[in-house]
Amino acid sequence: MDIAFLGLGKMGRGMAANLLQAGHNVTVWNRTRSRADELQSRGAHVAATPAEAARAGIAITMLADDQAVESAVYGETGILGALPAGGIHISMSTISVALSARLAEAHHAAGQSYVAAPVLGRPEAAAVAKLLIIAAGAPESIARVQPLFDVMSQKTNVVGSNPSAANVVKLCCNFFIASIIESLGETFALARKSGIEAAKLLEVFNSSPATAPLVATYGALIAEGKFTPPGFNLPLGLKDVRLVLAAADSAGAPLPIANLLHDRFLTAIARGLSDKDWSAIASLAAIDAGL
Amino acid sequence: MDIAFLGLGKMGRGMAANLLQAGHNVTVWNRTRSRADELQSRGAHVAATPAEAARAGIAITMLADDQAVESAVYGETGILGALPAGGIHISMSTISVALSARLAEAHHAAGQSYVAAPVLGRPEAAAVAKLLIIAAGAPESIARVQPLFDVMSQKTNVVGSNPSAANVVKLCCNFFIASIIESLGETFALARKSGIEAAKLLEVFNSSPATAPLVATYGALIAEGKFTPPGFNLPLGLKDVRLVLAAADSAGAPLPIANLLHDRFLTAIARGLSDKDWSAIASLAAIDAGL
Amino acid sequence: MDIAFLGLGKMGRGMAANLLQAGHNVTVWNRTRSRADELQSRGAHVAATPAEAARAGIAITMLADDQAVESAVYGETGILGALPAGGIHISMSTISVALSARLAEAHHAAGQSYVAAPVLGRPEAAAVAKLLIIAAGAPESIARVQPLFDVMSQKTNVVGSNPSAANVVKLCCNFFIASIIESLGETFALARKSGIEAAKLLEVFNSSPATAPLVATYGALIAEGKFTPPGFNLPLGLKDVRLVLAAADSAGAPLPIANLLHDRFLTAIARGLSDKDWSAIASLAAIDAGL
Amino acid sequence: MDIAFLGLGKMGRGMAANLLQAGHNVTVWNRTRSRADELQSRGAHVAATPAEAARAGIAITMLADDQAVESAVYGETGILGALPAGGIHISMSTISVALSARLAEAHHAAGQSYVAAPVLGRPEAAAVAKLLIIAAGAPESIARVQPLFDVMSQKTNVVGSNPSAANVVKLCCNFFIASIIESLGETFALARKSGIEAAKLLEVFNSSPATAPLVATYGALIAEGKFTPPGFNLPLGLKDVRLVLAAADSAGAPLPIANLLHDRFLTAIARGLSDKDWSAIASLAAIDAGL
Repeated sequence: MDIAFLGLGKMGRGMAANLLQAGHNVTVWNRTRSRADELQSRGAHVAATPAEAARAGIAITMLADDQAVESAVYGETGILGALPAGGIHISMSTISVALSARLAEAHHAAGQSYVAAPVLGRPEAAAVAKLLIIAAGAPESIARVQPLFDVMSQKTNVVGSNPSAANVVKLCCNFFIASIIESLGETFALARKSGIEAAKLLEVFNSSPATAPLVATYGALIAEGKFTPPGFNLPLGLKDVRLVLAAADSAGAPLPIANLLHDRFLTAIARGLSDKDWSAIASLAAIDAGL
Repeated sequence: MDIAFLGLGKMGRGMAANLLQAGHNVTVWNRTRSRADELQSRGAHVAATPAEAARAGIAITMLADDQAVESAVYGETGILGALPAGGIHISMSTISVALSARLAEAHHAAGQSYVAAPVLGRPEAAAVAKLLIIAAGAPESIARVQPLFDVMSQKTNVVGSNPSAANVVKLCCNFFIASIIESLGETFALARKSGIEAAKLLEVFNSSPATAPLVATYGALIAEGKFTPPGFNLPLGLKDVRLVLAAADSAGAPLPIANLLHDRFLTAIARGLSDKDWSAIASLAAIDAGL
Repeated sequence: MDIAFLGLGKMGRGMAANLLQAGHNVTVWNRTRSRADELQSRGAHVAATPAEAARAGIAITMLADDQAVESAVYGETGILGALPAGGIHISMSTISVALSARLAEAHHAAGQSYVAAPVLGRPEAAAVAKLLIIAAGAPESIARVQPLFDVMSQKTNVVGSNPSAANVVKLCCNFFIASIIESLGETFALARKSGIEAAKLLEVFNSSPATAPLVATYGALIAEGKFTPPGFNLPLGLKDVRLVLAAADSAGAPLPIANLLHDRFLTAIARGLSDKDWSAIASLAAIDAGL
Repeated sequence: MDIAFLGLGKMGRGMAANLLQAGHNVTVWNRTRSRADELQSRGAHVAATPAEAARAGIAITMLADDQAVESAVYGETGILGALPAGGIHISMSTISVALSARLAEAHHAAGQSYVAAPVLGRPEAAAVAKLLIIAAGAPESIARVQPLFDVMSQKTNVVGSNPSAANVVKLCCNFFIASIIESLGETFALARKSGIEAAKLLEVFNSSPATAPLVATYGALIAEGKFTPPGFNLPLGLKDVRLVLAAADSAGAPLPIANLLHDRFLTAIARGLSDKDWSAIASLAAIDAGL
């Protein structure tokens, strides 16, 4: 297929490379041109603007945040004005539910289709096509782009026909993960303040019904206090919790643990932990216990 | 071995039966005599008091709460005065850290040994010897009773030589599990209020790195609102969170999520959910969102 | 002085009337024209647009929210393009800190001055000039408009030269008041659940060092459960807490009580209390206690 | 009247002195004898045990905590066995609701009367008879001891005939005051992080309907960060919040702000603030904001 791929950050690079390798005709665009060049050597075309790339008919965005997506979509050089009728915008960034809803409307009004398809997984998973895709949108559009999803991921979970549902689900995942990090932090603080090594407690968790890959991985990092290098930056965690709270406020759902997480991230940043992994918020329960 | 088994509730019955079946010489005692008779038909001796049973030299307590353990240990009919020197009290109930510490001292002063060995698992797991045992105490005492643990469980996690450490770890487990239940409740509330079925969200969790037997089991119960019959009573959940908070207060560890759980249990009981499973606290986030 | 007064809601009407009565030359504008007519009969001129009114040189905005202020300021009919150089925009609405900062910049760039001067007090206080004004801005601008403040209020608190400081302080006031409402709700819930009438507890508060006009007034309303008619709508309370949280997020200050208040307002609205006074959030602690 | 006064700490000394000065016949007892001697020189008799003192027929306890009260009441040297039939125990310490209820029963069973009468006010207020008394008990008993209350206080609030009601109300007062301290801490943190001096914000609070002697006094201490010397020790604040939470747990009332306060006190102690005034918890919001 002819595909535009916009956004060649840590995640996007791997995803675009997988599309190329599968034989698709990919035109890439990135705000910083040099990254595009890298993919050019692997067969990609390079576009000067999102609009130029979007003539392909299918445009994937994998950008940093709402603002980056908005500037790639709207305006003279944006894909909204450039995608042909019947074209599809696959929005894979972690963006706000509100923006996703606005994009769905805008593309619909332009006779185009909009599929929200945010992903779970880190850059290493993106590189080896082991992402999980959470998709929502018109069934026929999803069916059309499913082959692309298959090339980039190990699984696609379709969660509805209303695109922004996928963004809600993605945010719920990150919220759930962050809440487990906080719970690990609190239980470890209680154990350590009681004279028990966090690693001992983690061993028990790992042999209990609460065992999860996530618990094992983050549990070990937190038990060792190993928050550098960051797999997922602490400020990105704050960004995601803000999106969760915005979605909750708009839906009218009070989420006490999300509030707590928001406070933890703010405190962590105030304490100079911005360059750590987001799981460093787990150290705050220990600090508050005087450890 | 000659063993006294005190407390034949839902959990204790299965555990004592497994000891009998393995060929141990078990003397049982239960506050309500009729339950003891049941085990008599399977080869157990029945004692009239804890003290009488404790002459066996090894006494296991598996009772409802601190008060029940205290009255089986102290006083004229209690095991403290009856266990021979060198005898071992294996305390398997979920009790307070403070009581466990007091028992350790009292048995030590009496020339006896005290092993704390609370368990993870429900009555069905007890019946088929699939419990997880969390043990702490003097290494030589644990070594002596390990064959008994092997008969009752699939695994023993030894977490230290200070007995009450096992009680802290057990409470951390229940706290961790309850916090995951609350997180499921909050994420489901956000999803549902946004028009997404909880089951859809759960599917994604189950295919994510957060997947855990616990998440799958409780997630399904919560998504279906199926809180009867209770696997673990809501008031027992409250009891455990109270023990967590008491341990945290005494250790000096602030635990915001434990506070939230305590409030959830109080609210659930005030709303008449006392006969539900403890995972019914997950319905409160939905109620507060107007669902 | 020649003054434009924009926004004739419950608050604005009384304030504009006081300016008229003091002999000022007031041109009013309101989105719904009929309210302007009422003031015309008391000597006001009526303008068709904010811009038309703003030729007066001093423009006061007293509007519902950020959006209303933005549409009165920006665009073709907005005051930004119409105020003469050296003109002053006195922004008295409860708006976000962020918008206030943007307005300060915009007016500065246009060679105009911007004074933030939100108020404390209800419509009845506005009518009899008993408001409290919290002002911030360039000292010379505040000095120029002080005579207007004197006509509308019993006191002006100048809190700094950076205009948005006044908005922060105003939000802190509303946050402080709402937190006292919540505290009343919780203490009353504990007392009532313990068999003590809330009115008895309030009597003690009123004779203690915590006695405050606010405690007496709201305490009585909450003790009686008298939340209609609303003095200040519950959804307006939610709006203000949102502004507090936005300011706190942007400043990087975690505020656990503000989070709690946000949840209380969301829950209250989900339970159908939108037409009640904002102090109705105090009933939620009672409900959660099963009262 | 013949009165036994048990407990000559900072509060008790002033109260006993006021009873002596009013011409009452006071027998004092204190665990540390030297303090009793001081009052002997002002006309008090000194008893060697609480029991000896209690022959007076009316016994006032003003002791540090539950444990101190229990050991002055129960046992061979306690007042329960020594008060004559018809005697009255006036319990003025801040103790748990549960103990107060147990004492009421015990005295009733012994043919004696029990009046709970905890106080609001610091040592200086005790010295000059400006305390506020919160009393509950049988009306005829309260009537009998009212002349004593009048000598020690500026006002008595009778809150019911069930003695422990007075303890609940006293705890509600301390909880309300502590919650205002926390609110001051949070609002000051937001203001300061936004570049506004706390003193400026306090000025506005003091001229608003939220003005209260408490807000002025604590607000100034917090704005200046002046937490030494302590008027009321931080660990005493923790003790009181624990009593609030115990009462709430037993009554079944979830109190989110009380939870937060409990965490604040634990954190403050973990950070080495134990020798500060309890209002030092207000500094934690600032610390979490990076101030």
